[in-house]
Amino acid sequence: MKFMDKYFKARKDKGSVLCLGLDPALPDQRSKDTIEKIYCGDVSDCIQQFSMEMIEAAGEYACAVKINSQYTLFALNFKRLQMLTESIHNYGMLAILDHKLGDIGSSNDSAMYWMEKCHFDAFTFSPYAGNIREATEMAHERDLGIIVLDLMSNPEAEGFQKKCRFNKTPVYLRVAEDVATAGSDGVVVGATGHVKEKDISSVRKTIGEDRIMLFPGVGVQGGDIKKIKESGGRNILINVGRDIIYEKNPREKIVEYHKKMKI
Amino acid sequence: MKFMDKYFKARKDKGSVLCLGLDPALPDQRSKDTIEKIYCGDVSDCIQQFSMEMIEAAGEYACAVKINSQYTLFALNFKRLQMLTESIHNYGMLAILDHKLGDIGSSNDSAMYWMEKCHFDAFTFSPYAGNIREATEMAHERDLGIIVLDLMSNPEAEGFQKKCRFNKTPVYLRVAEDVATAGSDGVVVGATGHVKEKDISSVRKTIGEDRIMLFPGVGVQGGDIKKIKESGGRNILINVGRDIIYEKNPREKIVEYHKKMKI
Repeated sequence: MKFMDKYFKARKDKGSVLCLGLDPALPDQRSKDTIEKIYCGDVSDCIQQFSMEMIEAAGEYACAVKINSQYTLFALNFKRLQMLTESIHNYGMLAILDHKLGDIGSSNDSAMYWMEKCHFDAFTFSPYAGNIREATEMAHERDLGIIVLDLMSNPEAEGFQKKCRFNKTPVYLRVAEDVATAGSDGVVVGATGHVKEKDISSVRKTIGEDRIMLFPGVGVQGGDIKKIKESGGRNILINVGRDIIYEKNPREKIVEYHKKMKI
Repeated sequence: MKFMDKYFKARKDKGSVLCLGLDPALPDQRSKDTIEKIYCGDVSDCIQQFSMEMIEAAGEYACAVKINSQYTLFALNFKRLQMLTESIHNYGMLAILDHKLGDIGSSNDSAMYWMEKCHFDAFTFSPYAGNIREATEMAHERDLGIIVLDLMSNPEAEGFQKKCRFNKTPVYLRVAEDVATAGSDGVVVGATGHVKEKDISSVRKTIGEDRIMLFPGVGVQGGDIKKIKESGGRNILINVGRDIIYEKNPREKIVEYHKKMKI
């Protein structure tokens, strides 16, 4: 099944566009927003167990689970990742690896070989090296969806993605054009800071209706769900991470966000 | 010790700017350039053992070992990576993770937490989201060197990195300026295709003499060592991967490249 069809099925089953963001940080990693110390013996077990519990809590409610490579890959090898994606799929959710892959041909292919082995449904891709068409073809050969970083909300992204121009087109719109012609499955667009409704609408217009827009930055980062729904259209995923997974009662927060993101 | 000082020491000890590229592909991963089937039982053991053997072969000759995340991270957890970096350091070489990290603040910090835990000396960074200054500060707090992707040699990079302009400056020169002002430790610059000697010289002029230029693409990809040395200056690392690690006699190839890259 194509990634977009999997997405339509999961969205219908869950009745929501909520995507759970799994960014599990260890207790000694930073001063707040971490897994509680009491749960952590072996760090790989700790990250895996915490992730499994969050997947279970989200199982009835989230359309997708987005696993962040920068928090998990050093601790969880492919066998552990397979266990996570198996659980995600058993609940009828999509498994997305937020990998921001952005390499040349053979290295991209290697990452996709491993992501296919781990049974991910899709991954995120960073287009600094271009290669959107090539990467999309390679991904689809392995039945992987590819979601391309387009317009991020951190202040410096405004410089590199909006103010830089390819002929006269801002980079983020050029990336959106490439996504449309390459047939990639979607884009990542920020939902806070310098990213305004008109930017989101421009991206949607450029990529067309039949692709996903994935919005990180809701919850702690303050993204506005109403603004996203109005400008992004129906085919969206809205990611919430920290504001769920580090709460006393994650399931309660999940139910709350599920409602807000009903479709 | 700062990364640049570690680099000066390793270069002096080895008398060469050779960087061994570790991109270990499994036998079922692609049709050529893979680890031989005969060595592979458990795939994590296989990749680790192969990597250890290559590190041993390069120990007397290479200035650095560059481990590619897209070939290794799904199979080797931080404990296994610690064993690789320990061996690399025992031979007096530098351990670089070719990670092309390119995320926002807290995810970048998480990756750096893990890279510090794995005892890497430096990592590669992709600047699509900007954040070069922030990432450099974060890296240096953890005693990690940061080498920023600048100008890549794949054909599409020409569009995104050379033809895109930030005001009137091509993106790759703007990135080079940011590297200079942020105090990052170096840049990655391709050595083939559309990347000419004058481009390499422009980058060198922009970043200044006291930073590393890391050149991939020598060996199978056809990069020209003489051109690199002439236009890149003394503070360089030249990476050779496939043309060494998949040879019948890797050590022989390493000795050959060591000579060509004497300094």
